[in-house]
Amino acid sequence: MRIALAQLNPTIGALNQNLKKIKEYYQRGMEGGADLVVFTELALSGYPPRDLLTYKSFPDSERELINNELLPLTAQNSPPILIGATHRQENRLFNAALLLEKGEIKSTHLKTLLPYFDVFDEERYFTRFKNRKIEMLGDLPTAITVCEDIWNDMEYFSAPLYDNDPLEGLFAQGARLLINLSASPYHRGKHALREDMLPFLAKKYNTAIIYLNQLGANDELVFDGSSLIYNHRGELLYRASAFEEELIYIETETLFQPALEITPPDRDDISTINQILQLGTRDYVTKTGFKKVVFGLSGGIDSAVVAALAAEALGPENVLGIMMPSPYSSEHSVHDAVKLAENLGINYRIVKIDQPFNAFIDMFNQGEGPRQDLAEENLQARLRGNILMHISNREGYLTLVTGNKSELAVGYCTLYGDMAGGLAILADVPKMMVYELANYLNDNHGREIIPRRIITKAPSAELRPNQKDEDSLPPYDVLDPILQMYLENNLSPAEIIETGYDKDIVQKVIRMVETSEFKRRQAAPGLRISPNSFGPGRRIPIARGYEYF
Amino acid sequence: MRIALAQLNPTIGALNQNLKKIKEYYQRGMEGGADLVVFTELALSGYPPRDLLTYKSFPDSERELINNELLPLTAQNSPPILIGATHRQENRLFNAALLLEKGEIKSTHLKTLLPYFDVFDEERYFTRFKNRKIEMLGDLPTAITVCEDIWNDMEYFSAPLYDNDPLEGLFAQGARLLINLSASPYHRGKHALREDMLPFLAKKYNTAIIYLNQLGANDELVFDGSSLIYNHRGELLYRASAFEEELIYIETETLFQPALEITPPDRDDISTINQILQLGTRDYVTKTGFKKVVFGLSGGIDSAVVAALAAEALGPENVLGIMMPSPYSSEHSVHDAVKLAENLGINYRIVKIDQPFNAFIDMFNQGEGPRQDLAEENLQARLRGNILMHISNREGYLTLVTGNKSELAVGYCTLYGDMAGGLAILADVPKMMVYELANYLNDNHGREIIPRRIITKAPSAELRPNQKDEDSLPPYDVLDPILQMYLENNLSPAEIIETGYDKDIVQKVIRMVETSEFKRRQAAPGLRISPNSFGPGRRIPIARGYEYF
Repeated sequence: MRIALAQLNPTIGALNQNLKKIKEYYQRGMEGGADLVVFTELALSGYPPRDLLTYKSFPDSERELINNELLPLTAQNSPPILIGATHRQENRLFNAALLLEKGEIKSTHLKTLLPYFDVFDEERYFTRFKNRKIEMLGDLPTAITVCEDIWNDMEYFSAPLYDNDPLEGLFAQGARLLINLSASPYHRGKHALREDMLPFLAKKYNTAIIYLNQLGANDELVFDGSSLIYNHRGELLYRASAFEEELIYIETETLFQPALEITPPDRDDISTINQILQLGTRDYVTKTGFKKVVFGLSGGIDSAVVAALAAEALGPENVLGIMMPSPYSSEHSVHDAVKLAENLGINYRIVKIDQPFNAFIDMFNQGEGPRQDLAEENLQARLRGNILMHISNREGYLTLVTGNKSELAVGYCTLYGDMAGGLAILADVPKMMVYELANYLNDNHGREIIPRRIITKAPSAELRPNQKDEDSLPPYDVLDPILQMYLENNLSPAEIIETGYDKDIVQKVIRMVETSEFKRRQAAPGLRISPNSFGPGRRIPIARGYEYF
Repeated sequence: MRIALAQLNPTIGALNQNLKKIKEYYQRGMEGGADLVVFTELALSGYPPRDLLTYKSFPDSERELINNELLPLTAQNSPPILIGATHRQENRLFNAALLLEKGEIKSTHLKTLLPYFDVFDEERYFTRFKNRKIEMLGDLPTAITVCEDIWNDMEYFSAPLYDNDPLEGLFAQGARLLINLSASPYHRGKHALREDMLPFLAKKYNTAIIYLNQLGANDELVFDGSSLIYNHRGELLYRASAFEEELIYIETETLFQPALEITPPDRDDISTINQILQLGTRDYVTKTGFKKVVFGLSGGIDSAVVAALAAEALGPENVLGIMMPSPYSSEHSVHDAVKLAENLGINYRIVKIDQPFNAFIDMFNQGEGPRQDLAEENLQARLRGNILMHISNREGYLTLVTGNKSELAVGYCTLYGDMAGGLAILADVPKMMVYELANYLNDNHGREIIPRRIITKAPSAELRPNQKDEDSLPPYDVLDPILQMYLENNLSPAEIIETGYDKDIVQKVIRMVETSEFKRRQAAPGLRISPNSFGPGRRIPIARGYEYF
């Protein structure tokens, strides 16, 4: 049997547009001799549809398209389709895999494990289903599962999240092939986790595995494809692209033969993050109907990396950097920014903020000149925000936020100022990793795209004379590890101090994190690359009194 | 037996501060002759603690306080305590009611039904517990339950959310008293629902009911107390305040006697909303550590109502209104705003935006004067946002957002402009209800607090000459009912059109709602008064392609 797997990039809710692509890939699969064409979890709606599922018409429209557009394709001797879709039964909604065959829904495979942690909210929309049955695909007894269903092995995980594992029941029925329709977003370390857990399952159950994952970004989440095929010995037979749509063919016979060669482990490193951020940027911009982006180009490292990523993701002709020097900007800043823009071939403009800044200062300080206090620092950031939003509103650019995760974590950023914009592409990238990206981008281009001085000079917001980030923050090589332990590894302050960091610094950092929640509540969506990003998966109350040390 | 019920206003996470209050009320209850003192759901942490529960130290600290501070109080012959708290068992966390008696935790009553819809996310944090046992309180077999536990009666609700009802098991064990520790936030209609459902349960199970609810606001949610006591015939014996802390005493004997008088149904009307918004404002301001608020006072109806509410909630001396006229402001605007400020006795300043506006226009339009396009309208709103945030940053005021729900729903507001601020107190109040509030406030004061012209003049953003809201929006008496049907009653566009509204208008309104999600994602927390407010309970993707008609 020849199976075709479609790793596609859907747009959330765009049922007709997604259908069109599904039909195209079905056609290609059929022409490629497939006996079955497989699509990902909730393939027509895209994942996650979130509250679109609460519009009654949404699952209804989806089912109509399946009945009227997909089922007829499978009539007579055309290959069946296995596709993720919602399924309503006795007034409950399920997250299902549907097998469409000979013009009918031959079987439904309803998801048992509904993730409800982090960015996942499936318990809100779906009902759990427990009595799972295997399916004969040709002569292969197959466990058809949906995403989370395979992630609760009681031996593999030391603290399984759910009290049951649907795989146990399915393999007790004699399954020899495991198909998993996924929509699993990227974070650092997830490739390694998948490529460790899946072969474990293959060996445990002596089963071949087809793991088909959604591609493409939806708001914060970047789905990284990287679909995987394992033989029953747990040897990797195929790994799909993390950044491109693919139609993958697999002969079921090969699933039970030794691998012809050993595939090296996945290289999930700074180059992956570079690609993920580009995919996330491109998808957000295009799926929200924009083409061009604008952002502040300060001559600093963050905006330089944003410029380079955006230029690659969208084409330099669609990228506009605005240099907005103030009286406190150092001379080299505009110079460096112009050099960068020229290296990248992006558009740029220089818009001095002196005039409106002086007008405000006159007004606020009754003609006494600047006081150089925090309020005036924020004012400069907000004037720049005004300028970017004006260009966005008047000329149809999407504004990108250039701030990094370290800043956002400690609140070293201005609401409505440098935080203004539609998408924050470095919001989950710590400062030290921004440097790593800058160096990688230069290496990758084989030349100095990002001018050396931008990488080597001391980070500064340039909001008062001779200001340096280190005046307000610990050095980033101290700050970043503390933030990672606190935010990503869930270490308590005491545990962080035990690793050797200074108690006062740790407490200061954590106090900054805890008191800047109100800023993040109003932050733009930020692309996620870590297991614990800010955004909808983080739910910390603002008005509160807990001191975490 | 004499039971004391403490309806308290906790601060989320402020374990020690909440403990102090709990001990005070315990002491008062003991002095008042109580044989048992009862507190609300998660009384030490406040509800909802959200992701504070993921800090391992948080439930640990809570339990430490129970062990070290509360248990000792109940030693020997002191009255027991019934209190909501987390409970860890076999590495799972439960939402529990704990009975503290004679220095020990005599019994735990673990919550079965964990709400995970709307603003509730309990499935993320807690494990469901099913085998519930009744408790003997004196000689009364009692069903001790936590909030949602009582909200799934299969006869009362046409579409119960859960597949089981813990009350069935508890009353099968012969319970005669139902105690419910709640933290149930206000929305319009909830009083009526409670006072309909609870007597239904009383009669169905022939049980007396003690319903004890949390008081006070936490971010968006305003908990409205209104604790209720019913006898076994379902007659209301007591209704506590919706706005104030209370210590309520009840003799268990009276729970099984006919009511001495008939209590009229709760009056949940515009006066309730007035009080709820004041409570929400006061609590957010004080619980975030502020004392004073600032906002734009335009001479329009929204900011007038905000001013009146804030003045009552915080005292006029803590309220600062800023009039920020532009060249497009009508003459009467500043005049009306000043009159209002004087009526209320609040502080005010006049800060013209001409100077910075002209500086920007010079810069953007190369000396050609204003173009009066949408970008320049937004610019004016953002300059006002700058001014408010400057005063906030420099002088320590919390900025209030003055926009109403109708505007926010259709995106008739400017990101980083009139949307700038820490709390949006009218974010869930439709425009027509803002008028209702204005009239109520005047009636309630027995004089014209809000000048008549502010109420009668046509709504206008005054961002270009002679602009009126109706140039861009349907009249509010058309817009508001459409929005209510769509957002609160979950009617589909087709169903709304069927009620008689013009198809083009309905589609225009819904398109405006659907395309302005990106603004609401970055909106300030807004006090909730409807069953379907914007904010954390609404999860609509931004980048998407679904057209809902």
